[in-house]
Order: sequence, then C-alpha cells, then structure tokens
Amino acid sequence: MKQNPSTCFAPRESVEQVEEGDQLAPKFDAQGVIPCITMHAETREVLMFAFMNPEALQLTIETGLAHYWSRSRQKLWKKGESSGMFQKVQRMLIDDDQDCVIIEVELTQPTAGGAEASCHVGYRSCFYREVPIGNSGGEPVKLKFTEQEKSFDPKAVYGDTPNPTQL
Amino acid sequence: MKQNPSTCFAPRESVEQVEEGDQLAPKFDAQGVIPCITMHAETREVLMFAFMNPEALQLTIETGLAHYWSRSRQKLWKKGESSGMFQKVQRMLIDDDQDCVIIEVELTQPTAGGAEASCHVGYRSCFYREVPIGNSGGEPVKLKFTEQEKSFDPKAVYGDTPNPTQL
Repeated sequence: MKQNPSTCFAPRESVEQVEEGDQLAPKFDAQGVIPCITMHAETREVLMFAFMNPEALQLTIETGLAHYWSRSRQKLWKKGESSGMFQKVQRMLIDDDQDCVIIEVELTQPTAGGAEASCHVGYRSCFYREVPIGNSGGEPVKLKFTEQEKSFDPKAVYGDTPNPTQL
Repeated sequence: MKQNPSTCFAPRESVEQVEEGDQLAPKFDAQGVIPCITMHAETREVLMFAFMNPEALQLTIETGLAHYWSRSRQKLWKKGESSGMFQKVQRMLIDDDQDCVIIEVELTQPTAGGAEASCHVGYRSCFYREVPIGNSGGEPVKLKFTEQEKSFDPKAVYGDTPNPTQL
C-alpha cells in the first residue's frame, strides 16, 4: 500500500487549518486509508461505503472517476473496471477533521446487462435492508428488505470472481 | 470498550446469511466498532460520520436516539448529551456485508441557542467543504466552503470541552 501522502495533499499542521482552512489535508488511518461515502448525485441514496488510499483519492480527484482501495484484494480498485459499473464523480465533500469524504456520483450500467447499480450482490445500493428501530422485547432483530429485486445478475457480471464479503 | 456482541445480534455464520438473510449480524472491526453514516431524514444531507461499538448500536436501535463510540474520549457518546443536539432516528439501514450502517435522523436545536445542527465546529453538517474535481495542473487543491455561516456558536455550546479533532 502506498503510504506517503501525494503531493496534492497539504501536511496537517493545526486544528484550525484542518477545520477552518481551504487546504486539502486528509487524514489516512493506521491502515493508510480514508473512508468514503458514495451517494447517487440525483436520488441522494447512499450507494456504498468503501476506503481510499492516497493514490485512490488523488486519482478520483484528478480523473473524476471513483477509485478505491480494495481491502479484500489489497489493491487499487477502479470501480467498474471489471463490471462496467463506473462511477462519475459530480461532487466531492470532506468533513471537519478531514478524515472522511463523500462522493456524489452518476452510475453507468453493467457491461453484461442490467440496470445501473453499485452493489456486488446485485442490488442498486449496498444498503438494501432496514433495521427496525424500537425495543424488540428480547426478540432477535429482523431485517426488512427495501429493494425487492436485483438490478443485475451478479453471476453474469462478476462470474467466478471471489466474493469480497468476509465473515 | 465493550467487545462482546450484544444478545440482539446474530453470529456471522455464512456469506449468504450475512448478505441475503434477515438476521442482524453486524461486523465490528479490529477496534470493536462499526462505521455509521448519519443523514438528515428530510433533506438527505449527510451530517456526520462516526463509529458505534456494540453497546452504542444496540442502544440506538432500542431507544431511537443516536449513540456512538467516541474514539477521542474512548467512551459511549449519547449524541446531544452535552449540547442538546440530539438525533432522533427515523430509519436505520445496513449494508450487504453488514459492516456499515446508515441512520436517517431528525435533529434538535442546541440548548444554548442556534439552529439545528450536527457538527462540533458549528456548521450544520460536518461536510461543509467541497473538493474540486479535475486535474489542478500541479496546483494545490483549494477547498470551497458550501456553508457560509455557522448554525451555532461552538464556544457557547461546548465551552472549554476539548476539541475532538486529532492531527
């Protein structure tokens, strides 16, 4: 993993600079990554949550296409490179202490067919289940699906690529 | 930090159960926490990004009020307990591999006065700066403020509480 901050990032020098300044001084965690929240630019759905290393963040800024750091594969991950489901960044935001970014994106459809989507399971968003709020009276919490149908067939799109989900 | 999963969570037994099932089987990372994206239920703004330990997640589900794990203070953090800026959870979502949650919230105003908000710096959202997309031609990236005014006076609301931002 590339650990050195790239040259387009400023060094973090003070709380005031980081919180109130106009320099991009992102904080990468102990694993060398920064969390990224990916939203649909039009619908305002949160589509996925992933991480960027310095190289992925810089490439996303420079090219306008979402790049991440794949923790399961331990490599740079240009979203869409195997599926065709690219993410075109319309806007990027960074938070107060500069340890989290948001990208607002437009999606492209999978090359193998299906509707625009983002989730490797086949749903449009990775957040396709609701957790009911309120005391369940000791009963196990039961998730409710908010998407009823998959947007694409993950077998057709990803073939035998190993599933990134880890237990 | 409380490390044992609480009883309302199911054990993680298979990828299929985690991705396609209706059991809540969250994954806490090596630090014992799960990331949480907090959105405004009406405006769909992302307000903040923080972490929950098992106790905070369970309390949020049971009470409908956002609880987090404060990494800077290393303690359970009921949002609003010092500021009055509580977050009432309207909906919670969980992602495919159950290692990230979203809460959609309504906000309450700071006790010391000001408009409803979420960010300790005084802005409505923690994400008050935009990172311009596109090659900057070697020039440093210059952030653009998307909020022009603070929603409340952080000095009046937080007094001499240490700033949680870490360099």
